[in-house]
Amino acid sequence: MANFPKRVEITEEGPREGFQIEKTLIPTARKIEFIDALSRTGLTSIQIVSFVNPKAVPNMADAEDVVAGITMQPGVAYTGLYLNDKGLERALATRRLTVSGSIILCASETFLKRHQNRTAEQHLAAEGETIERLKRHGLPTESAGISAAFGCNFEGDVPVSRLLTLAETIFNLAAEHDTRIKSFVLMDTMAWGTPDRIKRGIGALQDKYPNVDYALHLHDTRGMGIANAYAGLEMGVAHFDACVAGLGGCPFAGHAGAAGNVCTEDLAFMCHEMGIETGLDLDALIDCARLAEDVVGHPLPGSVMTGGSLQRLRQKIAA
Amino acid sequence: MANFPKRVEITEEGPREGFQIEKTLIPTARKIEFIDALSRTGLTSIQIVSFVNPKAVPNMADAEDVVAGITMQPGVAYTGLYLNDKGLERALATRRLTVSGSIILCASETFLKRHQNRTAEQHLAAEGETIERLKRHGLPTESAGISAAFGCNFEGDVPVSRLLTLAETIFNLAAEHDTRIKSFVLMDTMAWGTPDRIKRGIGALQDKYPNVDYALHLHDTRGMGIANAYAGLEMGVAHFDACVAGLGGCPFAGHAGAAGNVCTEDLAFMCHEMGIETGLDLDALIDCARLAEDVVGHPLPGSVMTGGSLQRLRQKIAA
Repeated sequence: MANFPKRVEITEEGPREGFQIEKTLIPTARKIEFIDALSRTGLTSIQIVSFVNPKAVPNMADAEDVVAGITMQPGVAYTGLYLNDKGLERALATRRLTVSGSIILCASETFLKRHQNRTAEQHLAAEGETIERLKRHGLPTESAGISAAFGCNFEGDVPVSRLLTLAETIFNLAAEHDTRIKSFVLMDTMAWGTPDRIKRGIGALQDKYPNVDYALHLHDTRGMGIANAYAGLEMGVAHFDACVAGLGGCPFAGHAGAAGNVCTEDLAFMCHEMGIETGLDLDALIDCARLAEDVVGHPLPGSVMTGGSLQRLRQKIAA
Repeated sequence: MANFPKRVEITEEGPREGFQIEKTLIPTARKIEFIDALSRTGLTSIQIVSFVNPKAVPNMADAEDVVAGITMQPGVAYTGLYLNDKGLERALATRRLTVSGSIILCASETFLKRHQNRTAEQHLAAEGETIERLKRHGLPTESAGISAAFGCNFEGDVPVSRLLTLAETIFNLAAEHDTRIKSFVLMDTMAWGTPDRIKRGIGALQDKYPNVDYALHLHDTRGMGIANAYAGLEMGVAHFDACVAGLGGCPFAGHAGAAGNVCTEDLAFMCHEMGIETGLDLDALIDCARLAEDVVGHPLPGSVMTGGSLQRLRQKIAA
């Protein structure tokens, strides 16, 4: 039987995932307006920028200004994505972001090369160095994960055995650096996931490493996002990355079409309707989704923002 | 554990569900072109028109011309929706459509009144008369179902007990008219379904009426379409209604926003990737989805038509 969690935590990644892929430059003030609105929805963790090469991702050139400009809400952790030492130093230099380590290996060497221009060996060494660098700042590395975990547009399917091998490498690396991994994310970077693959991947890891909290980072490129999240819920997964309005997509993934992340308010809607708490205000998220469409200047794929909240309908019917 | 079917049958309803909701009149020739393209995808059942009042649904005013104009493929059943005697007579008069009976009760009396302008009592009597009318034409009534099965925008949630009561009424009516119901559809007319509700509803009916094939008619208004279909697959449901490109929506449902049906090619994609046969050609369905966008003149919500087929990627990688 399904092992639904009682409570789900959603990490919002809309500002980072969503804006990085937009071709037009979004004004810094509008990014800040959007992040400030997200901060008032009950979200406790928001990834607001990435510290990457502005030539590769022009919409992240103002990352420092965005971080400096937001009105920080108590109880909300604001994070920035970094992929190398330079990015990490930029994140630390803001003095406003929550910075911690995460050992992320990629199931596809081809994608790793395209994305971070490293071999698997180079990347593993760099991940070890980052743990030590963070330690010198007094910062922990307690999370980990695998990107391209269910398949890769350049290499194809990823068998569960590969996930187990990569997980073993990760847990060994953590042990070598005297740290313990508490949370582990499987990232469906290029949307090869289907509900059965999600369940097999999560299940195999849970069997081998039972004392870890599992998380899913899902894309909706092939329409499987919410179904994959549901499959995760059935396996007891209680942490998801998501993007308001279904913002997002990876500029390195080589997709022909739309490539949004799983939609925060659609996922929150499903959880609430299933009796699973999220701590999120669905109406406030819907307002943020509409704001996101206004900020990027085109329609976004989220459904509940147009389909509407059932709680609102129930209240109207009861009135 | 999940009880996945080995094979899934999808009934395509795009021409009916999709065109009925369009505000601009679609030329008859384009409807025919679209239906003829669908006929070459492996689909074995396509609902191509509805015989309703053209004042209420102007895009169905040319129903007879559409039926007369298509190139019928062997092995494909073409059907038309009818909601009353007049509609049934029009369907029969075409002499080209597959006509059979289906006892459909509505879980919401308010919706029934808005949709068909009948009380539940009047509707039940009419359903009985239709069985007899079809008998006189030598036509069977072996399918049944419940609309608004998971909730109603005007009445709210539908408890499982109500589904069981309605099912009992249906099976009793069938027995009174000496017919046996072989297939039973739950229709999520106004998109109140969530995966857990789908499983509870289907499960309760399977427990009480085990010797019936269950089907789902799903809308994606709140983004739950594919997750709900997956929940159905877990319960062994092997028949789904769907619409290419996610065409569709009910003009009587009072929705604010987008209201498409669950998307045929996204559903077929999920089935194929899970090893479940559909007999459908995914590439041909994707071509139909793009044609649908061209015919209606605006983007449609289907994902795989932009995200792309994984089988195609695997072939490219292997080459």
